[in-house]
Amino acid sequence: MNLDGWSLHPQLARDTVELGDFPLSRALIAKDANYPWLILVPRRPDIVEIIDLDEEGQAQLIGEIARASRGLKSATQCDKLNVAALGNAVPQLHVHIIARYKTDKAWPKPIWGAAEPTDYEPTAMDRFVRAMKQELDIA
Amino acid sequence: MNLDGWSLHPQLARDTVELGDFPLSRALIAKDANYPWLILVPRRPDIVEIIDLDEEGQAQLIGEIARASRGLKSATQCDKLNVAALGNAVPQLHVHIIARYKTDKAWPKPIWGAAEPTDYEPTAMDRFVRAMKQELDIA
Repeated sequence: MNLDGWSLHPQLARDTVELGDFPLSRALIAKDANYPWLILVPRRPDIVEIIDLDEEGQAQLIGEIARASRGLKSATQCDKLNVAALGNAVPQLHVHIIARYKTDKAWPKPIWGAAEPTDYEPTAMDRFVRAMKQELDIA
Repeated sequence: MNLDGWSLHPQLARDTVELGDFPLSRALIAKDANYPWLILVPRRPDIVEIIDLDEEGQAQLIGEIARASRGLKSATQCDKLNVAALGNAVPQLHVHIIARYKTDKAWPKPIWGAAEPTDYEPTAMDRFVRAMKQELDIA
């Protein structure tokens, strides 16, 4: 837990690998090799909806979504980005940024419920983490 | 088509009822009575991804997402908001803002692919349009 009372939801911690922190959000990679998939989690306690952030926080969030999106697109050369804040299962506000290919398991459908998560090969996850840290210039 | 070359994608036109225009986006209601469901479409030509908008446009978009979200939550007293920019099928950038209830047909899953769209009763759609126009104070 941070000094300000924020800590990453345990479900998000289980399902992801940490990339680093933007000024507002923790950047994570989802452990599902089916899709190159980032998750941003604003490090503010008790935030469920985008509208629970103040205006400054909302502006920061869209800026970080854009930064993560550009990095993900550059690293993956994907056909489309999918960006979503759902949170029906895990209430802590988190934003999915998913690189989609016209050849992926779910295309053109949204990814949720389309295919069982697939483990990364450790070396493939390492490569993706290194590529994303470089693209995002993240601590 | 607008003078600036923008026009609403025909698939979005078919699937929605028009609410009005925010400074950046056209606000629409999806014709699916399963969920109170708004869609925002930035009125800029040839925009596919959020990152295709310039920084000012991105800031406007998150402000309009927040405005629509607050209005939708207030009008529906929903349990959760789902916000998503997917666009795998319809490439014109559009943002879904969906009011979710713990009792709806798809909960807790995302709505896509969960239930066949259901027609609104005309009076129910009229009521929803009037409620949203009032909440959003939209032209």
